[in-house]
Amino acid sequence: MSETKGRLTLPGEHEFYDETKELMRRWGADAIRDSDGTKLEERVKDLDAKIYTTYFVARNYNEFALQHLDETQQIFVMSERTIATSTHMTIEILKGFFTEQIQPNTLEDPKEWWQVHNRTTGELLPVDAWTYDATTQSVTINNVQPFHEYTVNFLAFVMWDPTQMYNHLTNNWGDVPKDIPFDARGPKSWEFMKATLQTWLKNNPKTDVVRFTTFFYHFTLFFNDMKKDKFVDWFGYGASVSPAALKAFEAEHGYRLLAEDFIQAGTYNSTFNEPTQRYLDYIDFQQRFVASRAKELVDMVHAHGKEAMMFLGDNWIGTEPYGDYFASIGLDAVVGSVGGGASLRVIADIPHVKYTEGRFLPYFFPDTFREGNDPVIEASDNWLRARRAIMRKPVNRIGYGGYPSLAYQFPKFVDYVERIADQFRDIIENIEDVKPHANLTVGILNSWGRLRTWQAFMVAHELWYKQTYSFYGMMDALSGMSVDVKFINFDDVKQGALADIDVVINAGQAGTAMSGGSNWNDPEVVSIIRQWVHEGHGFVGVGEPSAYDKSGKFFQLADILGVERERGLTLSSNKYFYTAMEKHFITEDKTQPFESGEPVTNIYATHKETEVIDIQDQNVTIAANQYGRGRGVYLSGLPYSSENARILYRSLFYAAGKETELHRWFSTNFNCEVNVYPAIGKVAIINNTADEQRTTVYDGNGNAHSMILRSEELRWEVLDENSIII
Amino acid sequence: MSETKGRLTLPGEHEFYDETKELMRRWGADAIRDSDGTKLEERVKDLDAKIYTTYFVARNYNEFALQHLDETQQIFVMSERTIATSTHMTIEILKGFFTEQIQPNTLEDPKEWWQVHNRTTGELLPVDAWTYDATTQSVTINNVQPFHEYTVNFLAFVMWDPTQMYNHLTNNWGDVPKDIPFDARGPKSWEFMKATLQTWLKNNPKTDVVRFTTFFYHFTLFFNDMKKDKFVDWFGYGASVSPAALKAFEAEHGYRLLAEDFIQAGTYNSTFNEPTQRYLDYIDFQQRFVASRAKELVDMVHAHGKEAMMFLGDNWIGTEPYGDYFASIGLDAVVGSVGGGASLRVIADIPHVKYTEGRFLPYFFPDTFREGNDPVIEASDNWLRARRAIMRKPVNRIGYGGYPSLAYQFPKFVDYVERIADQFRDIIENIEDVKPHANLTVGILNSWGRLRTWQAFMVAHELWYKQTYSFYGMMDALSGMSVDVKFINFDDVKQGALADIDVVINAGQAGTAMSGGSNWNDPEVVSIIRQWVHEGHGFVGVGEPSAYDKSGKFFQLADILGVERERGLTLSSNKYFYTAMEKHFITEDKTQPFESGEPVTNIYATHKETEVIDIQDQNVTIAANQYGRGRGVYLSGLPYSSENARILYRSLFYAAGKETELHRWFSTNFNCEVNVYPAIGKVAIINNTADEQRTTVYDGNGNAHSMILRSEELRWEVLDENSIII
Repeated sequence: MSETKGRLTLPGEHEFYDETKELMRRWGADAIRDSDGTKLEERVKDLDAKIYTTYFVARNYNEFALQHLDETQQIFVMSERTIATSTHMTIEILKGFFTEQIQPNTLEDPKEWWQVHNRTTGELLPVDAWTYDATTQSVTINNVQPFHEYTVNFLAFVMWDPTQMYNHLTNNWGDVPKDIPFDARGPKSWEFMKATLQTWLKNNPKTDVVRFTTFFYHFTLFFNDMKKDKFVDWFGYGASVSPAALKAFEAEHGYRLLAEDFIQAGTYNSTFNEPTQRYLDYIDFQQRFVASRAKELVDMVHAHGKEAMMFLGDNWIGTEPYGDYFASIGLDAVVGSVGGGASLRVIADIPHVKYTEGRFLPYFFPDTFREGNDPVIEASDNWLRARRAIMRKPVNRIGYGGYPSLAYQFPKFVDYVERIADQFRDIIENIEDVKPHANLTVGILNSWGRLRTWQAFMVAHELWYKQTYSFYGMMDALSGMSVDVKFINFDDVKQGALADIDVVINAGQAGTAMSGGSNWNDPEVVSIIRQWVHEGHGFVGVGEPSAYDKSGKFFQLADILGVERERGLTLSSNKYFYTAMEKHFITEDKTQPFESGEPVTNIYATHKETEVIDIQDQNVTIAANQYGRGRGVYLSGLPYSSENARILYRSLFYAAGKETELHRWFSTNFNCEVNVYPAIGKVAIINNTADEQRTTVYDGNGNAHSMILRSEELRWEVLDENSIII
Repeated sequence: MSETKGRLTLPGEHEFYDETKELMRRWGADAIRDSDGTKLEERVKDLDAKIYTTYFVARNYNEFALQHLDETQQIFVMSERTIATSTHMTIEILKGFFTEQIQPNTLEDPKEWWQVHNRTTGELLPVDAWTYDATTQSVTINNVQPFHEYTVNFLAFVMWDPTQMYNHLTNNWGDVPKDIPFDARGPKSWEFMKATLQTWLKNNPKTDVVRFTTFFYHFTLFFNDMKKDKFVDWFGYGASVSPAALKAFEAEHGYRLLAEDFIQAGTYNSTFNEPTQRYLDYIDFQQRFVASRAKELVDMVHAHGKEAMMFLGDNWIGTEPYGDYFASIGLDAVVGSVGGGASLRVIADIPHVKYTEGRFLPYFFPDTFREGNDPVIEASDNWLRARRAIMRKPVNRIGYGGYPSLAYQFPKFVDYVERIADQFRDIIENIEDVKPHANLTVGILNSWGRLRTWQAFMVAHELWYKQTYSFYGMMDALSGMSVDVKFINFDDVKQGALADIDVVINAGQAGTAMSGGSNWNDPEVVSIIRQWVHEGHGFVGVGEPSAYDKSGKFFQLADILGVERERGLTLSSNKYFYTAMEKHFITEDKTQPFESGEPVTNIYATHKETEVIDIQDQNVTIAANQYGRGRGVYLSGLPYSSENARILYRSLFYAAGKETELHRWFSTNFNCEVNVYPAIGKVAIINNTADEQRTTVYDGNGNAHSMILRSEELRWEVLDENSIII
């Protein structure tokens, strides 16, 4: 371990100068950053460290915003669903919203931009069927159908930036002004943004890195009348709309997007909704706009000899780091928060930047750093889950957030971070630009593909959801697995993307963008995958894979998977294969009943050849099926655990028909993992637990090496030219 | 108890004469019957009892059948789904079928009656795209799309009557000929059926009751290559087809039904499938045919001074006892088997017959009547569940099946049946034609309505299914509840059927005929129900009520129910109401965690006004919601138990807004139930358990009466003119 300094960013704090120096020395920090609401002291800026300064582009300037309210950011939202109880009705459009955040835009003609629907018939009402009363903020509809349900889609101003609103309300900021976000598409706003940054760059000579937090449009997040989330989609473009944007879109595409294109009957095009072509067109349009304007700002930063870093979150909409326009922004770096392996990979895999940085947990906040609590537990869990992913593709830097004075009061924690930092630098020194060997190439197939690389199954960033953890766990498992992972969509399948993939995974609930919904109604997709599996590849389905109700089938690839879901229409067709095999390759390392997560009910084997591997309460939870020279494997769900990661790993090998190759670069103990780096002739064996682990490691030649790994150990071994551990 | 004889039918047995007389005396039997495969001795026929003789109309005459194979009964079946692996494919059409039962009909032109589908595209292939080879019993398709899925719909002869086949294989009948069923629509068969019955009637002067087992067409039941059920639908008309029938249908309706009208991509129009209008037309057509021909046979029976009884099962297709044509058959009686309350009501409620008879459990078969087993346990369970229903609407007679010599070896069982028989006669003597008071009128709303009265959620008659017990339990609960139950369909709703109903129940899985599927896409249905509830009625939804994917809603009546199902598309909309109320009217008598049966996942409350009453694993399992002057109640499932029956009873009262009327004719202990018969001034209080029960019974005036009921007790109390128990 020669590299003992660098690659770590420390948050700054007032009146914490000497301790900051101590932490810098012990943790090897080479950068200090401020936070939302805090500023660094001048003497801190003079320390031997890069200075990151948070910069808000589209908020934090209320004086300007209040003078240009017509350029306030906007959103399409839907009123509450309202049942008519007579032939006449009035809908209070703001009912249920947090009115300090959302206010109707009446500067533009409601008749042009708003829509009233009869949701019982699905009909859009003609504009002369309703009137808007700005005084009562309500829409009156005449001649309604009694006991039909109506809604109003309306264009609203976002009067409060959602992140600042959240921080403000959570931390009781009281009189702190509410940041009004302004729109980069507004000509005055755009000039203001540029001029302000120019001035700021001049006035902040000690800033080395401008940490954009972030650019122009916040992900969709609006509150309800309880001041809590009403809707949150970390990917949502809903709050990037405006008449100006829609008119520019129309000029370019030849058609006008309507409120309903964004509202989609209240689902608001969440990332779980299959994107319509119109929405995809809009995303592309808005990405181009964001990238071109962000580039101008980044160019200004560079002109001042500083680096431009983007925080992956908040106002990140349109940047899509895996999209077609991200490279053109010219960013130096991206920083994002790390909740586990998958979220680490979201950051680490971002192309076209000089470096990436992961903000690790725990935050130095009083909820964790309180008397009687041991923050090392959370830090260890976070580090071990992230480290798995780092071994596959490291971020280039790590960092922390919050109040370092809190962390400083926990010496064991300070010690622990010191060890993490050293280990991180050791890893980087070895493998920063070294590609690890991949035992398989896996393709995750969903409606988003590459655009949302590692971002499947996220609703609000890193929050746990009952409906997603059974799938998100699979992403976490893959993030640290010795396989290459590609993200493909259904067009990619048609364009030959399966050519360099060994196993395709399709996972998620029926009818969602994750499982693919209506794409399974496409005979071309279905037959390409069938042929590809039949010729000797693998298809792993999780949850409701390939689900689409057609021709008496629900899983359109039930023929590959060997299982189907009974939904009550084929009860008359008897099922017979409910006995699990006593032993199977996929579950050979299982130590306890399979933890399948949320139940997927009524999965049954379609024929006697299906290998029923695990069954719970008469629902098949693991199965496999030979299909020509290939195989299908079904898993009902896969919450993250070391044991489940092993079940997935074996499933992939089994699907690929490569069981005999499993014992290469393999640890018999699933709490340990093996990564090999042929270019440097090294192998890394990690213990993913805080306990000592005994295991046998098989090297690239199939030789077994018994070993004991200490708590959290990362052990480097050296290889000879035959891939044998020396 | 003055009536000590009668109303009970005993099965006969050879070499059992004296014991038969003894059982007749002790059980008060006044009828003796034979069974499939057994004949009564002559001396038994001379006993003081009505003689029932089983009569098969469409089978049991193989000499005729073999000479008229062109009039063998027929069925449309679908080959296995087969994936093409090149541009050319051959499908062995019988693969997976039990070929002793199913054989292709090649007397008729396959090109006229068969269909080949590409199930991947959903397309029907032109007839010149394929050829049938009768030698190999296979269809060859040229120019297929590689890796698309194909099926062959073909017309087949049913070479073995399903019931006889089942008995034959189950009981190893060896050389007994396989009954070939012939078709009443075949001119020779019909003449044969009439002539044979005529002769038989002459030759069986001692027969008092001709027990038709049954008429012409068996419910759909075909076996697989393991000689087990491949498909079974107790309601299926699939095995009633023939070119003759379809041509007659065409002549009448002006259009030809196709194989796919019956096959429906392999679901075969099971009773859980929403019926198409074409299938409904066919059912109606076939009912008229069956009724008219059955009438001719029944008339012949009457002409010989005998009674005609129909067994409800086996070849009962087309009789539909709750349909429009049943009355015209002119039957004297119907007999059917009783598995519990709902199946008792299936028989007991049949209109237009002089009497009904329930065949009770256990059968006198060696599986139950074996050393070490106590058959009284099954008998008691069967009787107590049936008795609840009898108190609402009695069958007129009871009976048993099997070998009485077996039962005779169990004196405790003989004693028990003696008590059942006496109690049954006591009940009948009191209430045979007396309508019990109903505290509410409940409408069960599904796609079938009255036609399938009490027959919802049955797949194979009385078999337990994982996917249905949570709904069937509700039917069982209602069968003995002091409410009137009507069965209505969606047309009935539009024609005003809600007028005399207090509470509508809609239950079942999404997309099935039970919940109603696409009917919930009908604004008229939805708005009629909304208005009706709003004006002060109740809507109880069980499972996935009103489910149809439309306008961003899944439960189209979520506004009434106050709950919705999250299917992964609205994860971005936060849910907040996951705390169950501590106490609620509906669960006031609950003694243990609610047994909701199969999980219905991701049910959530839509707004804070929803009364969340029970929640399990973050799925709402019981909820209620005020809706105008009415209410919605949601139950995720309701397997039968006394406790669940009480939860349903209270749900109905709550939905109807009649909580204050609950304590009329009410037992505080849910193991006891109260039925009142105003016309005779009596109330019956039953103990539904084998244990002694303490309870407080409220009479019609609200007076409380504490009492202790013995094991299984039925207690009659007398009322004064103010409905007070004297």
